[in-house]
Amino acid sequence: MNYPKSQEILEEIKKAKKILVNCHRSPDADSVGSALATYLALKKMGKEVKVICPDNISEDVKFLPHSEVVEKIDFGKFDFGQWDLFLILDSGSPGMATGKREGVLPEIATIVIDHHKTNGKFGRINLVDENISSTGELLFSIFEDWGVEINKDIAQNLLAGIITDTGVFEYPLVTSRTLDIARALIDKGGDRQEIILNIFKNIDFIKVKFWGEILTRMEKDEAGFVWSAVSHEDFKKSGSPASAKESAASLFAPIVAGTDFGMIMVEEEKGILSVSLRSRGGFDVSKIAEKLGGGGHLSAAGAKVYVSDFDQAVLKVLEAARKVVNENQKK
Amino acid sequence: MNYPKSQEILEEIKKAKKILVNCHRSPDADSVGSALATYLALKKMGKEVKVICPDNISEDVKFLPHSEVVEKIDFGKFDFGQWDLFLILDSGSPGMATGKREGVLPEIATIVIDHHKTNGKFGRINLVDENISSTGELLFSIFEDWGVEINKDIAQNLLAGIITDTGVFEYPLVTSRTLDIARALIDKGGDRQEIILNIFKNIDFIKVKFWGEILTRMEKDEAGFVWSAVSHEDFKKSGSPASAKESAASLFAPIVAGTDFGMIMVEEEKGILSVSLRSRGGFDVSKIAEKLGGGGHLSAAGAKVYVSDFDQAVLKVLEAARKVVNENQKK
Repeated sequence: MNYPKSQEILEEIKKAKKILVNCHRSPDADSVGSALATYLALKKMGKEVKVICPDNISEDVKFLPHSEVVEKIDFGKFDFGQWDLFLILDSGSPGMATGKREGVLPEIATIVIDHHKTNGKFGRINLVDENISSTGELLFSIFEDWGVEINKDIAQNLLAGIITDTGVFEYPLVTSRTLDIARALIDKGGDRQEIILNIFKNIDFIKVKFWGEILTRMEKDEAGFVWSAVSHEDFKKSGSPASAKESAASLFAPIVAGTDFGMIMVEEEKGILSVSLRSRGGFDVSKIAEKLGGGGHLSAAGAKVYVSDFDQAVLKVLEAARKVVNENQKK
Repeated sequence: MNYPKSQEILEEIKKAKKILVNCHRSPDADSVGSALATYLALKKMGKEVKVICPDNISEDVKFLPHSEVVEKIDFGKFDFGQWDLFLILDSGSPGMATGKREGVLPEIATIVIDHHKTNGKFGRINLVDENISSTGELLFSIFEDWGVEINKDIAQNLLAGIITDTGVFEYPLVTSRTLDIARALIDKGGDRQEIILNIFKNIDFIKVKFWGEILTRMEKDEAGFVWSAVSHEDFKKSGSPASAKESAASLFAPIVAGTDFGMIMVEEEKGILSVSLRSRGGFDVSKIAEKLGGGGHLSAAGAKVYVSDFDQAVLKVLEAARKVVNENQKK
């Protein structure tokens, strides 16, 4: 038994006939893959299952087996009364699950299964393990507890979650257990190459070009970090590529020799400078994000700075960063 | 027994007292890590061992345990007569091993252990498996055959080779066996994070800036590929960053949605346009490289184009690429 709570959850499932499974807002492959793997496992148990999502799923996750069953619903209007149980996966908060700011959950039994550090444990039963790379990896262990036989489609959906949330086995939470699970999923028919091609080698040309804009503007600060900032005008000129800042941050912020971290700032909306921070080693970038009213993890954090003047906003971020570096050195 | 030839090689080792192990020219972490792991395994067997290399090892591989034992030698002058056996690892040709263009090998018994597709099998015994991700992975299987106990330092050296030659478990030759071996090496004390930090998060700032130059110049061709070309003048202006073309090719050439491959061209030396090609899926880029007098693999290939005029050289590469695309479509 990997988790004592697996058994408790399985008993709830056994009692239920009709089960809902969620994907979170703007769902990534860990959200959709986890939901579809659970859908397939519950179907095997003879349950009636529906996968619901506050958003449409994006093109790049449609390769996932059975992705066509995900149904976009309005959580404010959906009739939850007809369902016995709601499995909420990969969502740290009710708002993340429902896509509504207020995030009010339906009044049916809910079970939360997640790996987010910030999970509010808002279900009737909560199985949250923040040390696991992905909900896909967590579900593998839960399915093991449940005795679910992993077929090819379940394998592909779980593997997609693991590969996505680890940046292809690169991020810090990858352990030998992660690799062992990935090996098992590949042996069951999971297609590593298909996942990598769809998730990491399927980048819009305008996004790649925008990375170039970010890199040519990159500067190295004496305090031991790199940074780059793009104004709203230049962002628009580049075609306003979606999520380019986050991808650029993950790729380029934590890789420069002789630095502790990196920050990518893009004024995605006029007057709002959005900042993504990534640590290269042990430096806790969440401290900088907190100074700016944001938050996050040791190695990845973010914040939004509201200043009407772009240069002022950039300066505010740089000063916050230098201050945290100084405070660290004093210790 | 993973390889019948392991036994044959072990018998040669048992007969020898003094054994040389090579790193190849401009050795990467798979070369150095493999050599050091072999050094440690042979020392355990009570042998006198020396690791030799035609070049100095670079700063980024000095974190490998026992890297200080690698000795730079001139293969033309070194006295091989005092040694009984020469293990040549991770080298596809004598020239790659010796760093000399003519590549003449010393007249002592040599054993070649390698994973390069183009390996010329120039040893007395050759254990070459082109389907393996790295020499590190290959050696794990050989050590298993030999009954070598994997300690922490051997684990770190082998894992470094695997992680380096797979781009952190991303490239096509990664199998479930690769992940299983990596898991075993981590369990023996291999430090995945230290390797990633030293190899992939230790990039010179000028190289990162040069990636920006490459990306801002990137164009999408109607034939279904992306390309970017930088002249010698602009390369010099960017500080002539070493191996920036190869890293940019691996990172950016095979990732653009709606394309089959990408090409990065840099006129690193005046009058010589060096091209790195990377395939996004099944497209065989080695066919384009061959048309240009180069070579390589299906997913990664390269060529050098000697034309005095930069624009002419770029055009020559583009035309070769479009021609291969056309030939493929006719089939």
